[in-house]
Amino acid sequence: MNQAQKDYEELHKISLHARILDGIASLLDWDRETYMPPEGSEIRAEQLKVLAGLIHKEKTSKKFASALSKLIDIKSGDILAKSLNDEQQSALREWRRDYQRDTALPGSFVEEFAKLSSQSIQVWTIAKRENNFAHFAPFLEKIVAMSRKKADYLGYENHPYDALLDIYEQGATTEEISSIFNGLGKSVSNLVKKISQSQPVDDSILHGKFPFDKQLAFSKKIMQAIGYDLSKGRLDISTHPFSSACHPKDSRITTRIHPSNVFSNIATVLHECGHSLYEMGLPVEHYGSPLGEAISLGMHECQSRWWETRIGHSRPFWQHFLPELKKTFKSLEPVSLDSFYRAINKVTPSLIRVEADEVTYPLHVILRYELEKALIEGTLKVRDIPEAWNSKMQELLGVVPQNDSAGCLQDIHWAMGGFGYFPTYTLGNLYASHLFMAFEKKFPKWQELVAKGELEFIKEWLTQSVYCHGRRYTSKELLKKITGKPFDAKAYMQYLTKKYEEIYPK
Amino acid sequence: MNQAQKDYEELHKISLHARILDGIASLLDWDRETYMPPEGSEIRAEQLKVLAGLIHKEKTSKKFASALSKLIDIKSGDILAKSLNDEQQSALREWRRDYQRDTALPGSFVEEFAKLSSQSIQVWTIAKRENNFAHFAPFLEKIVAMSRKKADYLGYENHPYDALLDIYEQGATTEEISSIFNGLGKSVSNLVKKISQSQPVDDSILHGKFPFDKQLAFSKKIMQAIGYDLSKGRLDISTHPFSSACHPKDSRITTRIHPSNVFSNIATVLHECGHSLYEMGLPVEHYGSPLGEAISLGMHECQSRWWETRIGHSRPFWQHFLPELKKTFKSLEPVSLDSFYRAINKVTPSLIRVEADEVTYPLHVILRYELEKALIEGTLKVRDIPEAWNSKMQELLGVVPQNDSAGCLQDIHWAMGGFGYFPTYTLGNLYASHLFMAFEKKFPKWQELVAKGELEFIKEWLTQSVYCHGRRYTSKELLKKITGKPFDAKAYMQYLTKKYEEIYPK
Repeated sequence: MNQAQKDYEELHKISLHARILDGIASLLDWDRETYMPPEGSEIRAEQLKVLAGLIHKEKTSKKFASALSKLIDIKSGDILAKSLNDEQQSALREWRRDYQRDTALPGSFVEEFAKLSSQSIQVWTIAKRENNFAHFAPFLEKIVAMSRKKADYLGYENHPYDALLDIYEQGATTEEISSIFNGLGKSVSNLVKKISQSQPVDDSILHGKFPFDKQLAFSKKIMQAIGYDLSKGRLDISTHPFSSACHPKDSRITTRIHPSNVFSNIATVLHECGHSLYEMGLPVEHYGSPLGEAISLGMHECQSRWWETRIGHSRPFWQHFLPELKKTFKSLEPVSLDSFYRAINKVTPSLIRVEADEVTYPLHVILRYELEKALIEGTLKVRDIPEAWNSKMQELLGVVPQNDSAGCLQDIHWAMGGFGYFPTYTLGNLYASHLFMAFEKKFPKWQELVAKGELEFIKEWLTQSVYCHGRRYTSKELLKKITGKPFDAKAYMQYLTKKYEEIYPK
Repeated sequence: MNQAQKDYEELHKISLHARILDGIASLLDWDRETYMPPEGSEIRAEQLKVLAGLIHKEKTSKKFASALSKLIDIKSGDILAKSLNDEQQSALREWRRDYQRDTALPGSFVEEFAKLSSQSIQVWTIAKRENNFAHFAPFLEKIVAMSRKKADYLGYENHPYDALLDIYEQGATTEEISSIFNGLGKSVSNLVKKISQSQPVDDSILHGKFPFDKQLAFSKKIMQAIGYDLSKGRLDISTHPFSSACHPKDSRITTRIHPSNVFSNIATVLHECGHSLYEMGLPVEHYGSPLGEAISLGMHECQSRWWETRIGHSRPFWQHFLPELKKTFKSLEPVSLDSFYRAINKVTPSLIRVEADEVTYPLHVILRYELEKALIEGTLKVRDIPEAWNSKMQELLGVVPQNDSAGCLQDIHWAMGGFGYFPTYTLGNLYASHLFMAFEKKFPKWQELVAKGELEFIKEWLTQSVYCHGRRYTSKELLKKITGKPFDAKAYMQYLTKKYEEIYPK
């Protein structure tokens, strides 16, 4: 082994230590949402604070910087260890990027922001419950001001919001997102208008009595069928479903089950499985290095929406699973595949993002994007959010919330200081459709296979195409590598149009 | 606040940080035994190793030593901050003791031992399941060698095993334990002989069909009745029952349930509750200092055996709970209190320690004590354990296991590197009886109260007498303070003799 290899391994070892602590924190988060006794919340917050402090310390330590500096020039980004292979050189660039971001924010600022967002979440919880935006507003004002300051610390070329976007989606810019979202907003609005003029879909068959235990057992069947390995993960119940990424061999998901709705749990499980399969598919030998990490939030959402919408809301999937579902729930016996497929794909402009259908979902994201961009620019004041929210809802979706709890107070993201996060939800959907072009080319008969219940080839293809690379490529580099075409929103609109013109004929 | 107070608070703050990491490790242990996906074991071992390393680093840091040195002379043990109160001065002495012990072991040794024991536990699990001592032996050899080395690092005056004993029970020596165990072994053997010549007890009523869910629900009733607060803890299922001590507000227990046996789960739950109530009762304001910690394993076991045997195997306890139990399990309806009481107190020399009755239990501990002392001395080789085990079983209990799974592979302690641990099980029983003298003096009518289902006064008395002091006193100091008499084994033998001569009359 030459010196560069030795230095690379040393760097990996240092980085692994912080990654292990990060995995521990993710277990603590998981436990808090699943099994922790209620009185344990205070000490749990302390535990997470201690871990966050240790992780930050290790990621910004002189030890790490000195190990990194041997292989890459931190200032210029020039690779010094040219004997390393391409994969390793990519890892160095990502390590450098992380290091620069982690050291850009002064420790006192990080602490202050963590404290503020922790308080804001508490205040927001009350404000949402009591429909009292004015209670939350002063905290949100501080969050906006600090997020703006954060952008300055992180640095940007054109727009302060670029710096925030880049945290969650490397290289994404305000200019690019605005351009994509403008076109998308118009196309989706047109589609929604057409749908509203068509015959409405009846989804009453999805509502009834579907006992908790049977739903849970059915979810596990589906999980196993798509290749989720229950010896490396779990399914549990929590108020807000999530997936936890501790390690490729310990990646858990949660769901919530409404015994009056047969489908929402299935959709949730498929969504969270998508996140979890990505984590399980990351190369374990690179655990602790960027090559063992998911690319971005956008690519993560691409995986969850792939399974939830592209597969789990598809006709062939239910061609196979509907008979299974009928065995579990006798009340569904008279339901035809066609009416089930239409019911799960019903489109209705509605108020709550997390409950939105596939077509109207991007409009919810566009609304948030436009508001948070304006907040960061300073062209929108916090006190004017409710009004701006409601008029945007009217403009984009044609519905207006009866109060702020169902409107601008619905999401936790602003309270937790996550400006720049929302756009990744829609990017994920766009990525999934772009990626699907390559999948359909490789498996022109995928629908036949899925209809026969053969599903594992999908995970295998995603593993080889996406998971195995870790952060070797950026989202867009990877999409281009796989599909041969530069990324754009076309595939997504084509998919939506084709699918929903069939479900909602003129 | 004077300087000494400020320095004390600074020391507490530093120490709290390590205690928080320790609580995290205990959650990771809990998760490993309850919900962790099987494939997660390898990364879990790594996580625990990293935490153990960090904890050790913090406990032996210059920062800690310098904060401690301001208040106590680490070398001589002289208190420098004489303005601190007695309680705080005790804390300083205990901090110093911990520091001396922790600095005796090199960091690399601690990490290596943690990793080895984590692996050994995995190997032991398989070896036990497959009755394959040879599979476990190489790991146990390493554990013995490292334990011997640990004793050397820790230092001792007379016997290397003293150093290991002292970890779990401050001040206990091989000489003292040998002397107590010699006398106890003889007295117990005599009692067992007498019992064997008496009319056997029929415990067939405890065996039958007792469904899992009903047993679980009944355990929770008992837990709540004795004052276990389920908003600060949980009951889960694991192969080996244990209690986990993360924080007074997050202290969980596990049990195992045999649907063919109505009593073993109840006894287990009471036992683990005893441990957990101690942790929950520690003063939360002292969390992170010795005043917020349990005294020793012996005192811990005193608490668990107190609830399991002194209360949970007593006649008045079942005077109250038997009617409740009969409501849960109709098959028990014809059973009289007397026959139930005799059945749960049946004495039979048997193979498995954790299933042993109160009388033969100490003989199991004496066996392990003698073997592990010999292993540490080097007078017994690992490969000779099965033979030594079986002949000791014959000598002490008159029974011989048909295989090693039911013999020398039955306990996890050696796999986890817990040499010096076993004697505390019997010390705990001895302590409980000594303590009970004071309890009976204070509550001469305790039996009447318990028979009426009034149980919370017991926890309250234990809180005021034991829990609230943390490590202010050593076990023996505390026992003397509470009872007014120096500790010895007499109360225990008196209790056993009186109780069992009634159950087994001549």
